[in-house]
Amino acid sequence: MRELIAPSSSKIIMLVLDGLGGLPREPGGKTELETARTPHLDSLALKSALGLSQPAGPGITVGSGPGHLALFGYDPVVNNIGRGALEALGVDFDLGPDDLAARGNFCTLDKRGLVVDRRAGRLSTASAQELADLLNNIKIEGAEFELRIIKEHRFAFVMRSPRPGRLLSDTDPLKTGGPPLAVQPGDERSEKTARLLNLFLNRAQILLADHSPANMIMLRGFSLLPTLPSFKVRYGLKAGALALNGMYRGVAKLAGMKVLDIKERTMAGEFEALSRHYENYNFFYIHIKETDTCGEKGDFDGKVAVIEEVDRWIPHIMQLNPDVVLVGGDHSSPAVMQSHSWHPVPALLYSRLGRPDGIGEFGERACLKGSLGVLPAQNLMPLLLANAGRLKKYGA
Amino acid sequence: MRELIAPSSSKIIMLVLDGLGGLPREPGGKTELETARTPHLDSLALKSALGLSQPAGPGITVGSGPGHLALFGYDPVVNNIGRGALEALGVDFDLGPDDLAARGNFCTLDKRGLVVDRRAGRLSTASAQELADLLNNIKIEGAEFELRIIKEHRFAFVMRSPRPGRLLSDTDPLKTGGPPLAVQPGDERSEKTARLLNLFLNRAQILLADHSPANMIMLRGFSLLPTLPSFKVRYGLKAGALALNGMYRGVAKLAGMKVLDIKERTMAGEFEALSRHYENYNFFYIHIKETDTCGEKGDFDGKVAVIEEVDRWIPHIMQLNPDVVLVGGDHSSPAVMQSHSWHPVPALLYSRLGRPDGIGEFGERACLKGSLGVLPAQNLMPLLLANAGRLKKYGA
Repeated sequence: MRELIAPSSSKIIMLVLDGLGGLPREPGGKTELETARTPHLDSLALKSALGLSQPAGPGITVGSGPGHLALFGYDPVVNNIGRGALEALGVDFDLGPDDLAARGNFCTLDKRGLVVDRRAGRLSTASAQELADLLNNIKIEGAEFELRIIKEHRFAFVMRSPRPGRLLSDTDPLKTGGPPLAVQPGDERSEKTARLLNLFLNRAQILLADHSPANMIMLRGFSLLPTLPSFKVRYGLKAGALALNGMYRGVAKLAGMKVLDIKERTMAGEFEALSRHYENYNFFYIHIKETDTCGEKGDFDGKVAVIEEVDRWIPHIMQLNPDVVLVGGDHSSPAVMQSHSWHPVPALLYSRLGRPDGIGEFGERACLKGSLGVLPAQNLMPLLLANAGRLKKYGA
Repeated sequence: MRELIAPSSSKIIMLVLDGLGGLPREPGGKTELETARTPHLDSLALKSALGLSQPAGPGITVGSGPGHLALFGYDPVVNNIGRGALEALGVDFDLGPDDLAARGNFCTLDKRGLVVDRRAGRLSTASAQELADLLNNIKIEGAEFELRIIKEHRFAFVMRSPRPGRLLSDTDPLKTGGPPLAVQPGDERSEKTARLLNLFLNRAQILLADHSPANMIMLRGFSLLPTLPSFKVRYGLKAGALALNGMYRGVAKLAGMKVLDIKERTMAGEFEALSRHYENYNFFYIHIKETDTCGEKGDFDGKVAVIEEVDRWIPHIMQLNPDVVLVGGDHSSPAVMQSHSWHPVPALLYSRLGRPDGIGEFGERACLKGSLGVLPAQNLMPLLLANAGRLKKYGA
């Protein structure tokens, strides 16, 4: 692939509606996307190629990490992002190769040191922040540590040390009645890392002793960020990312995109930022979170409304005159399931050089008739590049 | 696959319209194939399975080499044919394993030995031929050399020597102002080969010194032919090839097909040869070049006319009563793009044992509705064999 990359001044926009794919509310009914009144998307569909994308193979439900890696053209299985790293990205940690991340919880231990509440009575975010400040003063030679509160008892934890290991067991026993566990190394390289983590956890326990119910912390999902060839190196693209949530900014950063500033933290703010930065980049990733949020909450009508709001921004996008536009999603989040799902995700590929399917509707069943077929999400990037005139011919 | 091959007397015809796939001339319009009046193809489509083939994956535009290898069922990425080998096949070099091929140019050097014209003023083909005759007299121990003029300053070059290397740098700097480069070997096996090539190039420079503007040659795209298991070995097929252009005869030969003689160098001549050889082979590859030529020239109407001419030969083919017929292409060449493109290529598979889709039209959008779906071109050969009763059951 990399050998086929050709220089071009064309511009590509990838508009990702998180959890876009859905299911009918009742048997025989319409999905969220089919229900939404989307005149602009429908007329764009008429000039586009349609299909359904699968992030990681039939039947596989993905999280946002692999869902996005696949959309960005990386193998989502080879390049898995661990839970810890994803949580850390979500609170805007600027993770480097020496940073080991984990998901953390404040918890309550009884006098014998056994976990009696894994969530420390869901203490307030403000109280959690005070305790984090306390723990962030811990100094241990050979490493730096930082907790950032996500919400209530939940935090992201990062330890920076040279060449950390990554095969490390969770300290969270995931049930009450037992003690928090010590970190166990899974290989030689992780031994020193485990020692440093356990030193930190001992100090934390001493510092927190008088702060019941939050008198201890537990860590799980230790992970390092995978290193990926950047969009610049892999595709020759100067890519900018527009996302309101840290995790998506983090995944975009991982792919070497520049995270662009958004003045107003709304969908309007994102699209305003697109116009403002339009001249300076040739690839834009725009992330819309609310479709997924509604899907996960089971809010069918809310998801419909978000899709309709996105639809009203389509003329704003098209007025910029991009060469290629993808409208798609990282996975499905049907409101009726209140969760992510494995169902293929509608994808619309508009391009000046495309072969339009002539289907004037953007919805799950309309996309099924499209020329992209049911395709691996990882195949979308090569298609976007080809349509943008950014791929040379293979072979003579 | 090879273990499943079953003997049969059935006959398969693969009719390849080079660069068949197209794009609408204007937004919302019809492609070349959709525009063409093709009553015979349409009525064949009604009894056939339709689909769209992709030579080397979504978004990848291929040259004729990989495009044909995929149609013939070989992996087009693993078995790449280099530029030099393809050019040599095009002028009917009968390349063997000891033949290293390259694409060559006559060029003009100034007094300091710097390239001032990479095309030697596009000297006439006749003058180029005289100079080639001169160079073809060069004798160097350990190798034989031959230039064959393609047209004007362009020629194919072959060096025959035992076990040649293939990692060899181009001598063409691809720009003016610098000297032609010496061939650099990229591995140990290529060292001797590079030495022989550089000896030849020194002699050539001496011989051409007084023949300005064509006072030097430059070589690029050094390549050996890949070796492929033949149609006989791989599929149990006695295959014959009908093609007017050397390159396609060459690729067919590479697949172990017998290149059949064509009396009149026209489409009619090709179909006459099909009838004449019909009894003696059980697989026929028929190559129609003009669809691609028109596509690359941007001649929409010309491409339509070629397709209509092919259509008139369909009854001639069907009257031979073949068991299986594929009508397809090696890649798309939309006239509006004046080049090869990545768009999937219409494919029609007629078979007595087929499950007809009942779609009475052969065109890009009609094929989209067909049961073959959008499939890798490499999957077509197994389908042809199955339909021809040439594949046994796998497993008990």
